[in-house]
Formats: sequence, structure tokens, C-alpha cells
Amino acid sequence: MNFPMISYIAGVILSVEGALMLLPLGVSLLYRDGCWASFAIAIALLLLIGLPLARRKPQNTDIYAKEGYVIVAGAWIVMSLFGAMPFLLSGEIPDFIDALFETVSGFTTTGSSILRDVEAMSRSMLFWRSFTHWIGGMGVLVFIMAILPLAGGRSVYLMRAESPGPSVGKLAPKIRSTAKILYGIYILLTVLEVILLCLGGMPLFDSLVNSFASVGTGGFGIKATSIAWYNNAYFDIVITVFMILCGINFNLFYLILMGHVLQALKSEELRWYLGIILVSTIVISLNILPLYDNIAQALRYAVFQVASIITTTGFATADFNLWPSLSRMILVVLMFLGASAGSTGGGLKIARFVILLKSIRRDVHKALHPRAYSLIRFEEKTVDEDTVRGVGSYFALYMLLLVCSVLLVSLNELDFTTTVTAVIACFNNIGPGLELVGPMGSFADFTWFSKLILTIDMLFGRLELIPLIMLVSPAVWKSHTKRRPL
Amino acid sequence: MNFPMISYIAGVILSVEGALMLLPLGVSLLYRDGCWASFAIAIALLLLIGLPLARRKPQNTDIYAKEGYVIVAGAWIVMSLFGAMPFLLSGEIPDFIDALFETVSGFTTTGSSILRDVEAMSRSMLFWRSFTHWIGGMGVLVFIMAILPLAGGRSVYLMRAESPGPSVGKLAPKIRSTAKILYGIYILLTVLEVILLCLGGMPLFDSLVNSFASVGTGGFGIKATSIAWYNNAYFDIVITVFMILCGINFNLFYLILMGHVLQALKSEELRWYLGIILVSTIVISLNILPLYDNIAQALRYAVFQVASIITTTGFATADFNLWPSLSRMILVVLMFLGASAGSTGGGLKIARFVILLKSIRRDVHKALHPRAYSLIRFEEKTVDEDTVRGVGSYFALYMLLLVCSVLLVSLNELDFTTTVTAVIACFNNIGPGLELVGPMGSFADFTWFSKLILTIDMLFGRLELIPLIMLVSPAVWKSHTKRRPL
Repeated sequence: MNFPMISYIAGVILSVEGALMLLPLGVSLLYRDGCWASFAIAIALLLLIGLPLARRKPQNTDIYAKEGYVIVAGAWIVMSLFGAMPFLLSGEIPDFIDALFETVSGFTTTGSSILRDVEAMSRSMLFWRSFTHWIGGMGVLVFIMAILPLAGGRSVYLMRAESPGPSVGKLAPKIRSTAKILYGIYILLTVLEVILLCLGGMPLFDSLVNSFASVGTGGFGIKATSIAWYNNAYFDIVITVFMILCGINFNLFYLILMGHVLQALKSEELRWYLGIILVSTIVISLNILPLYDNIAQALRYAVFQVASIITTTGFATADFNLWPSLSRMILVVLMFLGASAGSTGGGLKIARFVILLKSIRRDVHKALHPRAYSLIRFEEKTVDEDTVRGVGSYFALYMLLLVCSVLLVSLNELDFTTTVTAVIACFNNIGPGLELVGPMGSFADFTWFSKLILTIDMLFGRLELIPLIMLVSPAVWKSHTKRRPL
Repeated sequence: MNFPMISYIAGVILSVEGALMLLPLGVSLLYRDGCWASFAIAIALLLLIGLPLARRKPQNTDIYAKEGYVIVAGAWIVMSLFGAMPFLLSGEIPDFIDALFETVSGFTTTGSSILRDVEAMSRSMLFWRSFTHWIGGMGVLVFIMAILPLAGGRSVYLMRAESPGPSVGKLAPKIRSTAKILYGIYILLTVLEVILLCLGGMPLFDSLVNSFASVGTGGFGIKATSIAWYNNAYFDIVITVFMILCGINFNLFYLILMGHVLQALKSEELRWYLGIILVSTIVISLNILPLYDNIAQALRYAVFQVASIITTTGFATADFNLWPSLSRMILVVLMFLGASAGSTGGGLKIARFVILLKSIRRDVHKALHPRAYSLIRFEEKTVDEDTVRGVGSYFALYMLLLVCSVLLVSLNELDFTTTVTAVIACFNNIGPGLELVGPMGSFADFTWFSKLILTIDMLFGRLELIPLIMLVSPAVWKSHTKRRPL
């Protein structure tokens, strides 16, 4: 285990977090909401610890798989602990577990909230809360790789450990260039959405925080009724479009920017993703039609909720908790699916779902022809058998952790639907579930123990299970484990 | 496709069903409940169609994988359609879908009931209803293999298609001997339970039907409150023991009969199965302690419900729907697990669960050491990679069909918990779920469409997905598909 390198990267992460907190500090000073001191203290602490660590760049900058997992898991936990400080110091979220829950929910782009009255929060806290979505959406390690020259080309392990989906494609020969390209697209999308929302008449502050939450597919709202508060069809459409865009693999945007539009549109995952959105929207629209004036209105609410859930954003323009069973159930199923690999969204990911479907089809065929041998193809490439099996056991592990969490949260003695959907919503980084944790509800009623479990679930979901398991696995910490180079 | 062979076996199955129906006919005559005519007509029809078909034994008795699936799936459907006749003819279950639901629930050893008042049924109908559990428990095809000399040794395909679990072990060199041994053990267990219940003072009729339902892990009760009606600790213990016994792989009983007791006790699946029962019982006992007088009582109710659910029987001595969330949730999780492979129980099966766990562990290890290569061992044997992958995609297919069923049943507009647990209970052949379909509830409130979906789910669960899919797969019916011999 390369401890000097771990402490160096930890230092960089803390310093970067300190620097990022200057933004909400600025917001606080601008709106004079009296919270600047909370941010200042947190920043001071972050820099005081971070800068000295970040100064000592180690001789040996090699990072292997295990360091990658440990750094990523550790970074997200430390970032969240420090990120919770402003909430605690200002007293706006006085309870430690609550503040941690809210911060992890932010960084992991979940958007579940323990706040009973979000509109009572000060401007700068609302800004920081939504900004964590934006930071977590693309990943803070990816950001650091974009700004830092990490030698040895081993930083692919960091990226692999933090990026969502079954495999990471390098866009450019150098990881650093890939990270830069990803962040470039990410910033471009954010700026575009802010402009479009402002043009429609949304105040700049609201445009900013709502764009952070939709481009990061987080879903923290700054109104008690989420996006429904604005009751504006134009905003609904803009946010729907950006949520859907940010649920697409960012590699495709790169292809489009490079002029390979057709190649991007041929993506199998993209077609499945858009197909699922289309079918779900049509079915839900027909199902909720009796609740709305006309089909156009039903479509508007249906597509927003479908986009919000499948991209794991969690915004709401309607209280889908009051929708008919079929619609509610479709939304719950979409929670599992999640967005595309390589997007900012969470969940199981469409790519994994499609590979699972294909491996089911193959095995049904195999039951008929026991000696038949066939390979699975995805995105016009053969998927190697290790990946197929890996996706299968990822799914099994995912269900296992989900079930364990449900058992632990059920100690809370809340109703079955609340318990199950709360875990599903946190684990897949959605935000709202059904009943008590519905889009107009809150996670405030859970015990501190349940909140802690749900917090861990959010991290599991965002980091895709493995890094957190590695962090507590004794095998990783054994010094004699042989290192395997790339 | 060997159509002459299919029609021959269909004939045998119908004739056997006709012969088996002589038992409830006898019961009807004995108790003079006026239902003898319903059985007589059904028997006449079964023999009228079955005997002529069974007479023409085809020249070519070869059965391959696809015939195996088609025969098994077809047999279960036809058997259920004819099995529903007495209920319909007697008017005791006047609705066709209801009668079909009840019969399929019987044959598949599910035990879910659409009856609102089971105690109003006549004796012979109650007998037939529970007897279907016994017939379906070990499988009617296995029974036919025990009595019929099927040439060519190809009948292993029939057995494979009907037997639960990832693999079928031949106990004897000849399939026919294996089938005979299995039925021998099955009958022995049934007789033993009947004797033990009678010795405790349970009326012979009740002892018989309750033994059918517990040895077949079905769970149809003949009282409105299931086994709770007797309120007798001795009965509870006897039934608990026999439910647990029948959730064990029957191959182990064979080993014990052959004197290899130690080898049987070393079974990995057995240890997991008993371990899960033990842990679940302890946790639930502690969780429900406040509801009962003392720990002994809590243990008695906990172990019964745990055994009833994990073996997928579905009997109840307590209304676990009123238990605390954690206990309810543990029972729902056990519904998924199910009993051992090669037992009469349903569910995912412990063997699959353990192989999934081991493949998760391997893949977590692989994330750390990408080039490491290791095999999975189960029951002291290496599991070949096809089986590992097969178990993974079986689990994925199982979840997929479960989710599709939940979506279709949610059209029924019942609450989330009822909808989800009803599907889980039918799919895994348990019987009761939670809320409306709790152990003291009934499936009567569902629409005919939901009942049909749940009926199909029961068949999917009992036949382990593949045969039913094959029945409707065009590839199976293509005549030019090449035959692959054993």
C-alpha cells in the first residue's frame, strides 16, 4: 500500500474542497445571510490539513487497483465529513448524522433530504447543498486528474474506481486529457442549462442551483415542492431535457463534438435508454390521464418524472406518490435500472441491464442446445466472459447489499413501502421513494441508525459497491499482498 | 419434435391423474358429502382421453432437451386444467379462473388460496386440494418415471426439467430407480408424519391433509386460521420438523438410508440451510418476544413461521402480518431464498444462493487482483463456469419475471405491499404474503387478470422458469432444429 501517495492525494482533495467552498462563502457574503463564518472556518480547517499533505509529493507515485479503491472510498468519506461542517457550524442542520446524511446525499447526487423545511435554509447553505451535487456528479477524483499531472499512467485505477458503469473507456491516450474532456462537457452542459433557465425568467440563483442538481443528476430542490413550485412548463421541459442528456454516457458527447454524430447515435445503450424512457412515458401518461386535464399535461408530468427517476435525479413536478399503482411501480422499477454507464446518474446502469438481458437470452438458448457456444455482443463488440460474469455477480452483490440494508432499516418500524423504497432510493442515488419518503416527504422521521445505513447505501451506490468493500477488507490492508502492475 | 412420444406421455399423465382422483372419490363416498359425481365425471373424462393416447406407445421413445421442457410444461398445464374440474363441477369454486388458481396453487405446492371460507368446503374437495400438493411436491413426471419403463435413458431430460435446483444428481445408474427411491423416501416421510400427528390426537383426515401439505411443502390449510386453529404445541413441533425435513435435498436421505450419515451431514447446502433457519429463528424470537408470554412461546412461533416460509410451505401458527417490521422483512427475504435443491420446496434454492455468494466473493477478489484465476467449489466439487454463469443469469431472469409480474399485478390498484408480496409469494410457491394476502387473508380480492398472472407465476416458480419459456419459444417448435443427443 502506497501510503505516501494516499496521503498526498488526500491532501489535494481537502485543498480542492476548501477552494470549492469559496463559492458558497462568496454567496453568503453577497446575500449577507450571516453564514460566511461557518464556511470560513471549514475552509481554514480544510486548507490547514490539506495543504501540508499536498505539498509532499511522493517519489513513488504508482497507484494500483487496491490503492485506487482505498483512495476513492476514503476520499468520498473524508470529503463528506468536512462538507458537513458548514451545516453543523451554522446550526442550520444541528445534528451530526443529519448533516452527514445531507452532505453524502449531495455528493453522491442522491438528493434525499432530512430537511423538514428546506425553504427556511439560508441562501449560501442551499447553494453549497446543491453545489455538492455538481462536485459529486462527475466525481472529485476525475476533477483532480484533470488538474493534476499524475505520473505513471496508473491513475486509470482511480478513474475506474470512481466512474460509474461496467467499464471505463479512455477518450484520449492520456487519462488527464480524458478527465479534462469530461469536465469540459460537464461545464458546458451546466452553463447551457443556466442560460436557458435564466432566459425563461428563472432567477439566477435558482437557475444555478437547479442546474447543479440536474446536470449532476442529484435532485436537491430549494423549494418544499421541488420543481413543481415554479409550475412553469418551459422550466419543466428544459430540466427534463438536461436530466435526460446527463443520463447519457459522456463519451457519446465527445464523439459528437469530434463530428462522429452517426457513430454516437448508433450506441446500443443510448437506444435502450431512450427506448425505456419513451415506453415508460407513454404507459404512465395513459395511466395518469384521468388525473390531468388532457394528454399534453399528462405527458408533461409523466416525462419529467420518468426522466427524473431513470437518470436518478429525483426532482418532482408532481407528487407521484399519489399516482396509480402501475405508474408508481414503473417508477420503482426505473429506480433500479438507473442511467447509462459513464453518465452522472446512478442505479444499476442500462449497460449492465442489457448485458444481463443478453446473458439470460443466451442461457435460455443454452438450455435447449447444451453444447451451443455463443458470445455476447454489446455496442458492436464482443463482451468478454469475465465481464459477463462480473455483471452477473455485480447484480447479485447489489441485491444482497440492498436486502441487508432493508433488514437493518426495518428495525425502524416504519411501513413496508417506506422502508423498501427509502433503501432503493438511497442505494440507487435517486432521492425520493414512496409514502413517507415520497417526493413531497422527507427522511427526517428515520432514526439516526437508519440514516447512517442509508448514508452508507448512498456511498455504495455512487461508488458502485466495490471501493467501500475494499476499504474494510483485511486483504487490502495486508502489506505482503503482491502488487500487480497494469 | 417427437410428437408421438409427447402424446403418449400426455396420455399416461391424464390416466395417472384419473387414477389419483379415485382417492378423493373414495373420500367423498366415505363421508357422503355429495361430491362423488364431480370426481366421477372428471375421472371418466381423464381416462377417456388419456387411455387411448397411452395405449399407442411410439416406436421412437427418444426424448431430448426440448421435448423434456415441452412435456413438463404442457403436462403441468393440462393436469391443472383437469384438476380444476371437480371444483367447478361441484360448484364449490364456481369461477373458472378461481378454480384454476386454486388447482395450480395446489400442484405447484404454493398454497395461496382464493377461498374466503375454507371451512365451508366439503371433505372430498379439501382432500383433493391438499392431495394436489402431495402430487406436485415430488413431481408427477418423476412419479411416471418411477412406474413406467422409458427406454433410451433419455428420460433424464424430463427429470431435469421438472426437478428443482441447479443440477440433478442421479442416485442410481437408472433414472427409473432414482425416481423410485425418491418416491419411496417421499411416501415414508408422509406416512411417518401422519402417524405422529394421529398419535398426538389429530383426527385421521386432518393428519392426512396436513401431512400432504407439509411433506409437499404446499401449505393449504383446512381451517380459516391454518395450523393456528389447533393451538397445539405438539402438532406445531411435528409439522415444523417435517417441513424442515422436506426442505432438504432428498439425495441426502438416500445417503443416510445407505448408511453414509456422515457424508450427508457434511453437505454444504444442508449446513447453510440449517444455519439460516437457526439465525432467522433467533432474531425473530427476540424481535417478537414482547408479543408473547415467554421466550419458549416466541421460539415456538418463530421457528414454525421460519420453517414454513423457507421451505415455501406457507402454513401459519401466528399472523406474522402483525409482527414487527424486522420479522416481517426477514420472512420476505426467506421467501426469495427458498429451500434446498432437490427438495419439494420452491424459491431460488439455497444451492443457487450459495453459488451466487461465492461468485460475488470471487469477483470482489478479482477486482483487487485482476489477473487472479480461481474456481468456485461447492459440496467439495469444483463448479464449472457454465453453471456459475447459469446461476447468475437464472437469478437475473427470475428477478426480471418477478418485476414484470409486479407491474402487471399493480394494474389491480391494491397497495404496494400486497402487490409485491403476493407476487413474491406465488412466484416462490410460498402461499401467503403480507397485508391483504397475509396468512389470515386470501387472494380472493384480486381481479381475474391478476389471478391469471399469479397462476402463471406459480408455474414459473415450480418449473424453474425455463420449461414455460420453452413452451412459447418459436425456436423449440421449428422442425429443422437439430437434435443433440445426450
